[in-house]
Amino acid sequence: MTATPQVASEKIDGKVFPGWWQDIVGEGKAIDTKKFFVVCPDHFGGCYGSTGPPSRNPDTGREYGMAFPQFFIRDMINCNWELLKQLKIQKLHAVVGGSLGGLLALEFSSLHKDFAKNALILGASHKVSSQAIALNHISRQAIMLDPGWNQGHCYKEKFPVKGLSIARQIGHISYLNRKIMDEKFGREEVGQFKQYVSLPMQYQVESYLDYQGEKFCKRFDPNTYIYLSKAIDSFDLAREFGSLQNAFVGNSTAFTHVAISSDDLFPAEDTEKLHEQIKKAGAKSVFKLVKSEKGHDAIFLEKDKIAKVVEKALAN
Amino acid sequence: MTATPQVASEKIDGKVFPGWWQDIVGEGKAIDTKKFFVVCPDHFGGCYGSTGPPSRNPDTGREYGMAFPQFFIRDMINCNWELLKQLKIQKLHAVVGGSLGGLLALEFSSLHKDFAKNALILGASHKVSSQAIALNHISRQAIMLDPGWNQGHCYKEKFPVKGLSIARQIGHISYLNRKIMDEKFGREEVGQFKQYVSLPMQYQVESYLDYQGEKFCKRFDPNTYIYLSKAIDSFDLAREFGSLQNAFVGNSTAFTHVAISSDDLFPAEDTEKLHEQIKKAGAKSVFKLVKSEKGHDAIFLEKDKIAKVVEKALAN
Repeated sequence: MTATPQVASEKIDGKVFPGWWQDIVGEGKAIDTKKFFVVCPDHFGGCYGSTGPPSRNPDTGREYGMAFPQFFIRDMINCNWELLKQLKIQKLHAVVGGSLGGLLALEFSSLHKDFAKNALILGASHKVSSQAIALNHISRQAIMLDPGWNQGHCYKEKFPVKGLSIARQIGHISYLNRKIMDEKFGREEVGQFKQYVSLPMQYQVESYLDYQGEKFCKRFDPNTYIYLSKAIDSFDLAREFGSLQNAFVGNSTAFTHVAISSDDLFPAEDTEKLHEQIKKAGAKSVFKLVKSEKGHDAIFLEKDKIAKVVEKALAN
Repeated sequence: MTATPQVASEKIDGKVFPGWWQDIVGEGKAIDTKKFFVVCPDHFGGCYGSTGPPSRNPDTGREYGMAFPQFFIRDMINCNWELLKQLKIQKLHAVVGGSLGGLLALEFSSLHKDFAKNALILGASHKVSSQAIALNHISRQAIMLDPGWNQGHCYKEKFPVKGLSIARQIGHISYLNRKIMDEKFGREEVGQFKQYVSLPMQYQVESYLDYQGEKFCKRFDPNTYIYLSKAIDSFDLAREFGSLQNAFVGNSTAFTHVAISSDDLFPAEDTEKLHEQIKKAGAKSVFKLVKSEKGHDAIFLEKDKIAKVVEKALAN
């Protein structure tokens, strides 16, 4: 959802830039850059290269902010499609994505039914759950509650540090799950707070969330977060194409769905339902359940298990 | 957590006051007020009768606000204990509580090992999970972020309507669970928002949360919410008594634990662990798993199933 286009690690002028999926994408990795030419663009409306809310509106000379239009998953794919044309790419070996990237890969495959030979979708499904909408709703409210948001005019002195941090913290809770949080943090207190009560922050889990929230504010745009979360909420392939089968009829792409057994954000049962509907529509589909206690984030954390299914999905 | 002392419904001067557990407590109900004398006080630090943050500090003539001391589950029980003495109650047939009430009932039984003949605990366990701490942490931040909170001075013109509403919304998500939310709200939109995109509120689940949040602001105090959630986070019987068994050694109370199979806030496995430790400590304990998809809130929603276990627990 909030990753940069830097998917693999890269060495430029002696400096190493780490990639957010560097265990999977790179030379000799499951997505082997010796074999495949990997394109990972910033999505439309993002804040890592694409035109988005923080971009300058040439008509006003100011940042768009909340004057930027609401965009949807389809808009994002339409932009990717233009990019592929500009790159003169005729055919993709695979369209690959996890989480929001998975929604994008599904949308791409539904709109362009023979362009990708394979589609590999991880931790995603054809729609967003009621609970995920609820969490995004709360996140947007927190950003907008922060006086620093300033109706979206937060590019000069003001910035909604606390509001955007809360949004990120809510995100982190949904990327993990209850069991892994208990395992990772339990009720452990931060050193100096073992002896007395501290209201702003006492437990390791609070410290972790505060840290993640603050770090996020240095690299992401609050208005982009608002629009992007709304685009995700709106994703519903069945509605967009009339029915779920409609979205996949006549599709020559071979789908592989990777679901995580403990994923609360995109539950495995939803992904399996999608897989079954794709098969009923007459298209090729494989469903892989990765058993893991690590929640939605397992698509990053379960390196070996994920590498194995990715490699297999791209072998054809 | 936020209920009033009005546990059963009551008719006063022809007007009916509904009770928050009226399906269980009342004449001819599972907790039969023809048989039992039911005491349900506001907890210490609350805002329904007890001295708490919104009370006037006699030294300053102003509301305490955040000058009120942080209180803990043990403080709350110490106050209940004083109340029982004032009421000249020598013995309780049962101490009964759900959720926060369950923590209070556990604390009571651990401090006063022979005062209650029975202890009935629903949707609770001996500690609060890492995820629950995380959600409370976010809730407190949201209240404090609201300019209306005003460092706790929110008893005149200002009030953190949005911040307290966000806190309540987070609560509601944790009282339900993913499946029941999908069943209850799905991706259904509010009538007028079926045709176009509305950023502040579009889906039924958002409307429900907004409504619950606003309603809550009319009846609850933001500073009480901050202190109360922190008291809950701090609850850890094993730490308080050296070990979980220590808390129950020599206890003559008969425990009944009611866990909900889909409870994400107080998972059944934690409750079962508590039950086993009580037995190992040599005290009487029964564990009842109520199968329900309704999450933590099932202790209110599964009226028949809950009535049955309550009746049985109080029969001895």
